[in-house]
Amino acid sequence: MIPFDGERLQRAMRTRQVDVVLASTRHNVRYLTGGYYLSFYARTPRFGRGQYLSLVGIPESDLSSAFYVGRQDGVLKEQDYIDVFGPMWITNRHWIKRGTSMSVPAAETAAQILRDKGMAGRTIAVELPFLPADAFEALRRGLPEASFVDATPILAELRAVKRPAELERLARVHQVTAQAVRAVMNEGRPDQTTREIAARVERGIEERGATFLYVFTNVGPGFLRAPSSLQWGKGRAMHVDAGAEIDEYMADIARMGSIGAPSALATELFNACLDGQARVRAAVGAGLPCRDLWRIGTDAVSTGPHGRYGRFLAHGLGMVSHEPPEVSEHTDGALEASMVVSIETEYLHPDAGHIKLEDTVVVTPTGHEGLGDVAREWCVVPDA
Amino acid sequence: MIPFDGERLQRAMRTRQVDVVLASTRHNVRYLTGGYYLSFYARTPRFGRGQYLSLVGIPESDLSSAFYVGRQDGVLKEQDYIDVFGPMWITNRHWIKRGTSMSVPAAETAAQILRDKGMAGRTIAVELPFLPADAFEALRRGLPEASFVDATPILAELRAVKRPAELERLARVHQVTAQAVRAVMNEGRPDQTTREIAARVERGIEERGATFLYVFTNVGPGFLRAPSSLQWGKGRAMHVDAGAEIDEYMADIARMGSIGAPSALATELFNACLDGQARVRAAVGAGLPCRDLWRIGTDAVSTGPHGRYGRFLAHGLGMVSHEPPEVSEHTDGALEASMVVSIETEYLHPDAGHIKLEDTVVVTPTGHEGLGDVAREWCVVPDA
Repeated sequence: MIPFDGERLQRAMRTRQVDVVLASTRHNVRYLTGGYYLSFYARTPRFGRGQYLSLVGIPESDLSSAFYVGRQDGVLKEQDYIDVFGPMWITNRHWIKRGTSMSVPAAETAAQILRDKGMAGRTIAVELPFLPADAFEALRRGLPEASFVDATPILAELRAVKRPAELERLARVHQVTAQAVRAVMNEGRPDQTTREIAARVERGIEERGATFLYVFTNVGPGFLRAPSSLQWGKGRAMHVDAGAEIDEYMADIARMGSIGAPSALATELFNACLDGQARVRAAVGAGLPCRDLWRIGTDAVSTGPHGRYGRFLAHGLGMVSHEPPEVSEHTDGALEASMVVSIETEYLHPDAGHIKLEDTVVVTPTGHEGLGDVAREWCVVPDA
Repeated sequence: MIPFDGERLQRAMRTRQVDVVLASTRHNVRYLTGGYYLSFYARTPRFGRGQYLSLVGIPESDLSSAFYVGRQDGVLKEQDYIDVFGPMWITNRHWIKRGTSMSVPAAETAAQILRDKGMAGRTIAVELPFLPADAFEALRRGLPEASFVDATPILAELRAVKRPAELERLARVHQVTAQAVRAVMNEGRPDQTTREIAARVERGIEERGATFLYVFTNVGPGFLRAPSSLQWGKGRAMHVDAGAEIDEYMADIARMGSIGAPSALATELFNACLDGQARVRAAVGAGLPCRDLWRIGTDAVSTGPHGRYGRFLAHGLGMVSHEPPEVSEHTDGALEASMVVSIETEYLHPDAGHIKLEDTVVVTPTGHEGLGDVAREWCVVPDA
């Protein structure tokens, strides 16, 4: 059974007059296969003089004729990995052998499959910002009559509405990340540098079973977000803005804390962040135009005594950060149920630093649910 | 100061008549800058509709005129990260702003820099198996007179001879990986599946401060290497073949173990692996033709009573697995001091399974030194 919304994919392809999607990135191969990616290359595709490349091809006219191109030779048999993974809906599988290049033969194989299907002259969407240059060259050599367009927006639109299993992973990775950040803050000391804190957040995320992706740190005043030799100190506002991943689904959260009580100004700014979040969340629900969401958030942070320092941002989140829905004053679409939105409210105040709160919600038919509403309050670490 | 062997790079470029190298992968950007890569995108470059792309350009005629293209805008200032990193030898830095695409503007900027240098019609080496298709298109649009060739072999050759700091990292990551594998084996139980064991190896590598990359498992008899629901059982040979990374430098080791004593056959095969390793190591040293190394290893595993099941493989290892030196019957080169070679001796025996030992050595002027010679012996777990 097709593990995604086939009609949504076909709609997105037809809108862009695309006949075939040919996906090549780890996240989209996983999405389209229902979770499979060859584990040996999942963390580091580079090998020898090139990199591993697998391809999933899906014709709009007949999703069930989708095909997979992977690798199968004496040293590494992908079929074994697929057998261990479990039933995979794409049964039309083609194998390349390891050679000097892994990307070129994969692309050549895909070109031949499309030619055999009589689709050599069609419009083929490939992931242009990701597909290796040599693989794209091989595709064009193999299919000189074809037109190539970018598959990225089609696949992003397909992924925008999440299934329950995806929401579970997103909730888990957000909770784990928030817990890790809170635990590190609780153990904070004034002489700790933001570099040490960043390393602890990384370890804390891994200890909780997620994959660390990144961490920004800010100790106010000043707006530096690169982890550095700057010490947290006493009474100084710190934000930690961290990203992590579980099974390809990403978390993106920001939390505040200080050793000892924060300044009255910092408290005021943080309350404004909380208030902005509440106003945005009160509006979120299926059918809300994204443009309206942008307006409500922007108004929320830019009014009030510190409005000139306020900033609002909301973006879709899933396998990719800043995936659809796009939330800006120029967006035409509306929120749909089971879309996921990360909401950022922040103030960059010259006397306090970068005060920020970020949390992620899933859109429901009538409102929203928080996916990682853990330890959202300002963390005051006792000043021992 | 240039953090790599500039003359070696120039030699590799001249041999291939290349005027400019334009590197784009995380590992080669790190190598060429002396360790810098923007941390936010280091673990996951994908973002919005595309991916982050930074570029390092180095003209053969004047290494000191090298340039860097990164990102600098209100949200993310790469200059901050470079300041925190410390002095960087490439002072000619150019910035793009975040937009719908990050790869195309980076490539366009590089094209303009090369045009301004009067190098628009030259031969430019780019990492063809890695450079995103849209960035390559933008480069070709911006430099229609230029010739493009693959930079991968040039950069691999440059990296083949390691500096002491690189060897230290390689030693550390190999030791950590070997320790993690041994610890997991020591805690093994007959009902543990290879999937559980693989997950424990991953956790063990992370707990020791390295980044997990991959793990193969085999429980004999049978040659399946994908972690699965297969249980270790009693008296059955298991190999764990794992990869990890510290600061971009990779480990690649394989270890054997069993719960209770292994069979006489498995012991014999393992001793043959050890013996093959010893014979290969005895030959390793600066000046040894790679072809001779291949011959010695192949002879070692293919003679003796189980020779028909034997397999020998040796490959360079550093930031990339299977980087130079290449060790095959067709290789022309010779080992140089401070090259790193991973040596694999293995037997795929139908009655015992996949018996394998893999370890990595650095070539010295007169011989070799092991980089991760930790817990190499067969691990016999007491059968409680």
